[in-house]
Amino acid sequence: MAGRKKLNVGMVGYGFMGRTHSNAFGKVNQFFDLGYEPVLKAVCGRDKDKVEDFARIWNYATSEPDWRKLVERSDIDLVDIAAPNDTHTEIALAAAAAGKMVMCEKPLGRNAAESAKMTEAVERAKVPNMVWYNYRRVPAVTLAKQLIDEGRLGRVYHYRAKFLQDWTISKDLPQGGAGLWRLDVGVAGSGVTGDLLAHCIDTALWLNGGIDKVTAMTETFVKERMHNLSGKVEPVGIDDASLLLARFANGSLASFEATRYARGHKALYTFEINGEHASIGWDLHDLHRLQYFDHGDQGIVRGWRSIHITDSDHPYMAHWWVPGLQIGYEHTFVHQVADFLDGLASGKPAAPTFRDALATDRVTDAVLRSAQSGRWEQP
Amino acid sequence: MAGRKKLNVGMVGYGFMGRTHSNAFGKVNQFFDLGYEPVLKAVCGRDKDKVEDFARIWNYATSEPDWRKLVERSDIDLVDIAAPNDTHTEIALAAAAAGKMVMCEKPLGRNAAESAKMTEAVERAKVPNMVWYNYRRVPAVTLAKQLIDEGRLGRVYHYRAKFLQDWTISKDLPQGGAGLWRLDVGVAGSGVTGDLLAHCIDTALWLNGGIDKVTAMTETFVKERMHNLSGKVEPVGIDDASLLLARFANGSLASFEATRYARGHKALYTFEINGEHASIGWDLHDLHRLQYFDHGDQGIVRGWRSIHITDSDHPYMAHWWVPGLQIGYEHTFVHQVADFLDGLASGKPAAPTFRDALATDRVTDAVLRSAQSGRWEQP
Amino acid sequence: MAGRKKLNVGMVGYGFMGRTHSNAFGKVNQFFDLGYEPVLKAVCGRDKDKVEDFARIWNYATSEPDWRKLVERSDIDLVDIAAPNDTHTEIALAAAAAGKMVMCEKPLGRNAAESAKMTEAVERAKVPNMVWYNYRRVPAVTLAKQLIDEGRLGRVYHYRAKFLQDWTISKDLPQGGAGLWRLDVGVAGSGVTGDLLAHCIDTALWLNGGIDKVTAMTETFVKERMHNLSGKVEPVGIDDASLLLARFANGSLASFEATRYARGHKALYTFEINGEHASIGWDLHDLHRLQYFDHGDQGIVRGWRSIHITDSDHPYMAHWWVPGLQIGYEHTFVHQVADFLDGLASGKPAAPTFRDALATDRVTDAVLRSAQSGRWEQP
Amino acid sequence: MAGRKKLNVGMVGYGFMGRTHSNAFGKVNQFFDLGYEPVLKAVCGRDKDKVEDFARIWNYATSEPDWRKLVERSDIDLVDIAAPNDTHTEIALAAAAAGKMVMCEKPLGRNAAESAKMTEAVERAKVPNMVWYNYRRVPAVTLAKQLIDEGRLGRVYHYRAKFLQDWTISKDLPQGGAGLWRLDVGVAGSGVTGDLLAHCIDTALWLNGGIDKVTAMTETFVKERMHNLSGKVEPVGIDDASLLLARFANGSLASFEATRYARGHKALYTFEINGEHASIGWDLHDLHRLQYFDHGDQGIVRGWRSIHITDSDHPYMAHWWVPGLQIGYEHTFVHQVADFLDGLASGKPAAPTFRDALATDRVTDAVLRSAQSGRWEQP
Repeated sequence: MAGRKKLNVGMVGYGFMGRTHSNAFGKVNQFFDLGYEPVLKAVCGRDKDKVEDFARIWNYATSEPDWRKLVERSDIDLVDIAAPNDTHTEIALAAAAAGKMVMCEKPLGRNAAESAKMTEAVERAKVPNMVWYNYRRVPAVTLAKQLIDEGRLGRVYHYRAKFLQDWTISKDLPQGGAGLWRLDVGVAGSGVTGDLLAHCIDTALWLNGGIDKVTAMTETFVKERMHNLSGKVEPVGIDDASLLLARFANGSLASFEATRYARGHKALYTFEINGEHASIGWDLHDLHRLQYFDHGDQGIVRGWRSIHITDSDHPYMAHWWVPGLQIGYEHTFVHQVADFLDGLASGKPAAPTFRDALATDRVTDAVLRSAQSGRWEQP
Repeated sequence: MAGRKKLNVGMVGYGFMGRTHSNAFGKVNQFFDLGYEPVLKAVCGRDKDKVEDFARIWNYATSEPDWRKLVERSDIDLVDIAAPNDTHTEIALAAAAAGKMVMCEKPLGRNAAESAKMTEAVERAKVPNMVWYNYRRVPAVTLAKQLIDEGRLGRVYHYRAKFLQDWTISKDLPQGGAGLWRLDVGVAGSGVTGDLLAHCIDTALWLNGGIDKVTAMTETFVKERMHNLSGKVEPVGIDDASLLLARFANGSLASFEATRYARGHKALYTFEINGEHASIGWDLHDLHRLQYFDHGDQGIVRGWRSIHITDSDHPYMAHWWVPGLQIGYEHTFVHQVADFLDGLASGKPAAPTFRDALATDRVTDAVLRSAQSGRWEQP
Repeated sequence: MAGRKKLNVGMVGYGFMGRTHSNAFGKVNQFFDLGYEPVLKAVCGRDKDKVEDFARIWNYATSEPDWRKLVERSDIDLVDIAAPNDTHTEIALAAAAAGKMVMCEKPLGRNAAESAKMTEAVERAKVPNMVWYNYRRVPAVTLAKQLIDEGRLGRVYHYRAKFLQDWTISKDLPQGGAGLWRLDVGVAGSGVTGDLLAHCIDTALWLNGGIDKVTAMTETFVKERMHNLSGKVEPVGIDDASLLLARFANGSLASFEATRYARGHKALYTFEINGEHASIGWDLHDLHRLQYFDHGDQGIVRGWRSIHITDSDHPYMAHWWVPGLQIGYEHTFVHQVADFLDGLASGKPAAPTFRDALATDRVTDAVLRSAQSGRWEQP
Repeated sequence: MAGRKKLNVGMVGYGFMGRTHSNAFGKVNQFFDLGYEPVLKAVCGRDKDKVEDFARIWNYATSEPDWRKLVERSDIDLVDIAAPNDTHTEIALAAAAAGKMVMCEKPLGRNAAESAKMTEAVERAKVPNMVWYNYRRVPAVTLAKQLIDEGRLGRVYHYRAKFLQDWTISKDLPQGGAGLWRLDVGVAGSGVTGDLLAHCIDTALWLNGGIDKVTAMTETFVKERMHNLSGKVEPVGIDDASLLLARFANGSLASFEATRYARGHKALYTFEINGEHASIGWDLHDLHRLQYFDHGDQGIVRGWRSIHITDSDHPYMAHWWVPGLQIGYEHTFVHQVADFLDGLASGKPAAPTFRDALATDRVTDAVLRSAQSGRWEQP
């Protein structure tokens, strides 16, 4: 596209999410024809050698050890926060104050109070903002949204979602530090509730509207783990599993479950929606498929359709290869950048914004409250 | 088997369940070599013509319009109750009082109070008794029990089950009368809680032990329906959907769901158990398969195994055909009769007894209480 | 049904197929309302004790050690041949000569020459006749036929089928005698070609019309096996695997494969048909499902439908249970008896007749010829 | 990696395959730590505007309209041929003569004669060479190779593969020109035989060894199509479907099928191998899974394992994300570049070389000969 504008990106973080975001910024203009072009100006991280390696690999012009400087740099338009959860608020507030656009890895804050501050900050500063709930941009999930918006389901009766992993079952796994900060409640804020359940809630609010109330239970199966930073066995503060029932504003009944103790499942995020006329199902382990049941089909040949989401009329897929050839996990981040850039060009900001992510955090907060109170709680 | 003893059966009911039970009594000795042989002496039902047709088709020696007479007949050893729920208690009490063995279609009573009376009656009379929770005898489910009893799962973290149907979504469906008494709360006692959820609970108690507490929600999506007996539109008293979270005594966390509003699912009863070392999954729509994940498998070739339960070393399967050839729904009833007869011969009564079924009803009662109270309730 | 006519059945054979046929005759009137009622008059087999046991279990009025007497008995209307392949011709010829209806387990003869004699005999005698290609009566397969007859596929381009087993891989498995006569070429006529491939061909001729020519290869992986009757190691005369390419008269291209050396598959009979507008797939390991792809579906929601064949508008299913509850292998034989009896009542003989089965044997003969000649052969 | 060597790449072609190759060259060093680093020096294509756009999007330093100049440029180390089949030979010969390394999109030549010339040329010039049979580098397929090499299958009995598409069914689809040259026999050399079947053969030769003989049939369903270049309806010279039976040198029996007339399948490349001890299955529509059956598993829990190929001990996967998160089609090209570069560094050339691809073309030639002769042909 002629006259494409540059968008200078400063990245904070160089772990797993730093890679997915950097890959997305780097690839987006090879597959999408957009009005903006991200330019990777600087990446910021504490370990000088590692961050320099990262900068070289991912084509960042510079590395920057201090995020406070990054946020102040005049050659940065957008600050992308891909560092651990306990850094989100401070960085986001500073970035917004400096008038930068802000993108933030999910969950937004460690709790809704932090998220509210961040939301207030970006809205006050009127800067474009987005949270990386990337699963909305799995083409199959985007198609689900489209089918729902077209009214194909009719009245919705049921929503159920779960996110099942099994990587923390061993008691010998330590907590804390690089790669394991998600087990450290001080850093993460919560366990699977903020990490996995938050994905399920974000999708659900998007697809099925607001949640009125929840009742929940959580569990920490392994109560103590060696902490990598202190070198001592310390209590585990996070929740290993989180389950809830919910009522949506549209009258539908829901159940959600997130756990890291479901042996046999690595990242099985799955949801199903049952409506009056049709139902939809999806799972992350076969993310390129959508399951669809249309009661309007003739009875004798009615059945769940396994839709291979690789055709050019499927969301985002015209930008990739040819029918039958599947894309994977990382592509969802490319789509998110593409939509964010499109939003900049069109003036219609792409979701989920910080405010959208705050709504999710209010639900996860209510989940944790209910797990304590034993009662139904409102978000 | 030489010297096989006759067991004279009197059946009450000639609907769907009357057929499955009759088929089971008729086939059991063609596939199992047992010490007892059921003899179909009499079937009892209100409609004289229909019950006579039924008797002829299913080879009952006689038909009997009045169950009170049936219960008193000296040529009847066993009374099998396959009539609507509101008849269970009275018939079972009379049968026990007359010293008959009693088999009863599930749920045992319309509520735990009825079930307690029935349990007390058969135990006082010391008569063999059983409740037709037939899904325990799906070979795949029996194998699941065997694998669990062998200790393959280790500590159990999660249990989840659901029973999804979609046959009552239409508002035009009436309630009450033949074929639709399950929608009439006076007859059925409850809706999906007693009808579908009870199956899930029975299996769960069997596979995973006792439940300590539950929190639940229920819903009646269609509030009024024409009643077939009164001819008038009347309030619907049953629950259309029932969801709960539960804690098992073994520390595992569970979620259950039963509904008749899950578009696209006809009878999708499914459960999954996640243990420290292995996980197991099953569903009724492909009842001849068991899903099994063994973490002990070598990493590079570790995956969920889809076990086609048709080999002669799989439970019950040596009695049927050859490997690869599947059996269906009705066979579970044949297995249940076979085990009951085996229990008579061995003196070790086959489960689930009335007392086992009472435990299930105490859970379903707690579910309905919790749906009212909004709190955790104990069975 | 009032005025139902008795049909006196004489069964020859009491092995695996004797059981499936007997079960079918015994159950058919409990599930179908027909003009004829089979009466099990006599079962014939060489081992007196075993055949008497069999008669008792399956409710045959008498047992009869000599099939020649059975065929002559005036109280027999129908002779059903469920004995090994090398007995089919002689018994069928005698039964036809005696004016009996004849049903015969497949394959009809050990080769097309035998089948032709048998066909000629029943046609000359003008007696109703049928061959037990039972897989036509799997409800999903019958539905496939219905969909094809409705013209939903348009021009057919491809047909592919295979029947995979793995039970003879061990070199230690002997050949010959009870249970293993299928490995003895003198008794069986051929190996998988007559046993498994014949099923695939029967279905294909029914669904897709006549075959013009084939090119094939066969293999005997284990060349010598202990023979149970001689007690000596003897050459193996059967084919262990049989593969072919074929041209149908309708212009479609096909491939077929049958083997007992496909590790991991017990009885995986599967076929798929690709037409201009739609495609259909099915397999015996999940026999209660039909896979259906309709190109007429809207693009974004187009996908293979997994149809759970348990609704009352699916073929045969109104006679069984309720939606969602699957039937199994043995039911296909019940359906076949039901259709045969219906054919007697209506005067429109049910297929496949001896003549239909002869067409199949002509194809399998051509397969074996081509495997020798290395050339395309015509049936 | 310090001291990484630059490898200057000149690309010929900017269509679908130009994109997949360019993407691979661009990403490889972000995910793999290698001794060589590709530098995209120039891309060559006939349409000046398009090739310049392509160069800009994919970060080529220059565009070059004449491939003869590209081949001669001293700043080019490697010529990658991603142009239509009829250009492969001439370009490869020139590149080899100029002492360039050569990579070539498959099939190598339009027939084995062309492939032989190309193979001779690169071998005479002693330049590293590779053909883009990318499916070898699907991690699941690479794992299959590893399992076979470990001897897990034992003696192999059966190999079957098919590649099913449906995109040319419409008679209104023209032939020839951009995007449709695969339908023009002069450009493509053959139809599905060279396009789809060649993939199946390449994998098969790699996994299962050499093929001794084949018997085949082909068909052109649509005999005439408008030609985009001439503007006239012209005969169609390609094969629309190609089926064969084969004997491998290891004694196993095989069937192969490739077609563009299998309604419902977009790019369903699937293979299965049955060995004495284990079997393996895979398909491109769920490329991140491997199906594995191990007869050594305990009988009651033996079943096909669905292995989700996303763990760090699975081939290539340590370079990507975390367990449970799948990769897609394009990654196979990245792997191929990584292996090629690794081969340069280690001096052990990565397969498939031109010579390997020539072996495939000899098989596909034999297929086309057999389809004419009606006899078994040797490659």
